[in-house]
Amino acid sequence: MALSEIKALAFDVFGTVVDYRGTIMREGQQLNLAKGLSVDWAQFADAWRARYRPSMDRVMRGELPWTNLDALHRLSLNELLTEFKLNDHFTQEEQDHLNRVWHRLQPWPDAIPGLTHLRKRLVLATLSNGNMALLVNMARYSALPWDCILSAELVQAYKPDPRPYQMAVKLLGLQSHEVMMVAAHQEDLRSAQAQGMQAAFVPRPQEYSPHNVPDLTPDPAFEVLATDFMDLAQQLGTLDAAGIQPNQ
Amino acid sequence: MALSEIKALAFDVFGTVVDYRGTIMREGQQLNLAKGLSVDWAQFADAWRARYRPSMDRVMRGELPWTNLDALHRLSLNELLTEFKLNDHFTQEEQDHLNRVWHRLQPWPDAIPGLTHLRKRLVLATLSNGNMALLVNMARYSALPWDCILSAELVQAYKPDPRPYQMAVKLLGLQSHEVMMVAAHQEDLRSAQAQGMQAAFVPRPQEYSPHNVPDLTPDPAFEVLATDFMDLAQQLGTLDAAGIQPNQ
Repeated sequence: MALSEIKALAFDVFGTVVDYRGTIMREGQQLNLAKGLSVDWAQFADAWRARYRPSMDRVMRGELPWTNLDALHRLSLNELLTEFKLNDHFTQEEQDHLNRVWHRLQPWPDAIPGLTHLRKRLVLATLSNGNMALLVNMARYSALPWDCILSAELVQAYKPDPRPYQMAVKLLGLQSHEVMMVAAHQEDLRSAQAQGMQAAFVPRPQEYSPHNVPDLTPDPAFEVLATDFMDLAQQLGTLDAAGIQPNQ
Repeated sequence: MALSEIKALAFDVFGTVVDYRGTIMREGQQLNLAKGLSVDWAQFADAWRARYRPSMDRVMRGELPWTNLDALHRLSLNELLTEFKLNDHFTQEEQDHLNRVWHRLQPWPDAIPGLTHLRKRLVLATLSNGNMALLVNMARYSALPWDCILSAELVQAYKPDPRPYQMAVKLLGLQSHEVMMVAAHQEDLRSAQAQGMQAAFVPRPQEYSPHNVPDLTPDPAFEVLATDFMDLAQQLGTLDAAGIQPNQ
């Protein structure tokens, strides 16, 4: 499978495009100041993220009916507010706003310039476990230049289930090898490859707590290993393209 | 239902945002010149469009399994190429390219400025019977500033079936009265209203052959009647908004 065959990129979002840990820490610091709290928001962010996979697993095992990510985040937030003894400090409306911090996540510094170059020649889609409204709001908030928002919500099955990957290839009207998955997480990429897609690994060591960085040694089976999205744009030959090229 | 409650607009695309008749006529004229043909492309465009509703009806009656619009357009094109005696003049590859003229449709002159203003305060989604890849390619080709591409393909049911309207409201994470359908076609708007959405009618008399303009007298039940997208932006109070407002 040649890189020259790629017509579209499908992006994992949380951790790959946007820095959830940094954003939650920054918003949380503002809350500490506004409310006179002394919450460790790095710890809060890590605890919230730690509930992410288990909450989706409950859906996929059938212990919960289909529940979108906003609702799963809210279930986890309820637990965390109790655990961090914060229930008395936030009205329901403020809790709802805090839950939507996932709609306001900010990109890694290379993300927008990289996406802007990549988009000149390639169709850019999200392929995220985030729900559609979350991804749409995030794109507006952080000016992410997607051509198309695709979400696991469309097939009511969370990655790494095969269905989201198959859905993306089909809705983009392409062959699987013409779509490259871009992610900071190797399981996501291996699952995409299992459906015939190509894979670009962009490690994001700063996604994690410095005390808890997973092994990011790249699987040699991935077609591309890139240091960031500008490097990806370089390797895919889009850095010098002029303007948006219609893919006709 | 107040206009101030609207958070998102769902747009019909063919005829409402883009001028399929004019685009097909312009591309066809180029083909006449390149191939020494004398096809009446206005007649060709009208004949192609005339097959649109009946082809979707066949799917919705169950006479065809789910078939996306690219494939329905291709079935109609095959008939037209025979009817216009053009089979010998186009290779298979050229026929495929001609079929994708629907991916290259050009906007009405007010569309991009109007959408750009509307987008500052409102989420802009397509809600079209066109398939996802068609809408994504068209957005890139014609620089349409959508926040989100939504298609009847996502629920495998063509408008005016209730499912596409319900899907749009749900995926946007909104209440139905917070979403306004924008269309040049009154049946589309009445179907949206039947699902609780608000409706803006933007008549496009130039969509049709001058000999065959339907009655465009507006149903007084629509919340907004606008002469074009700039007028719509004015009526929805977005003309003076500064920059993109995140809807948090």
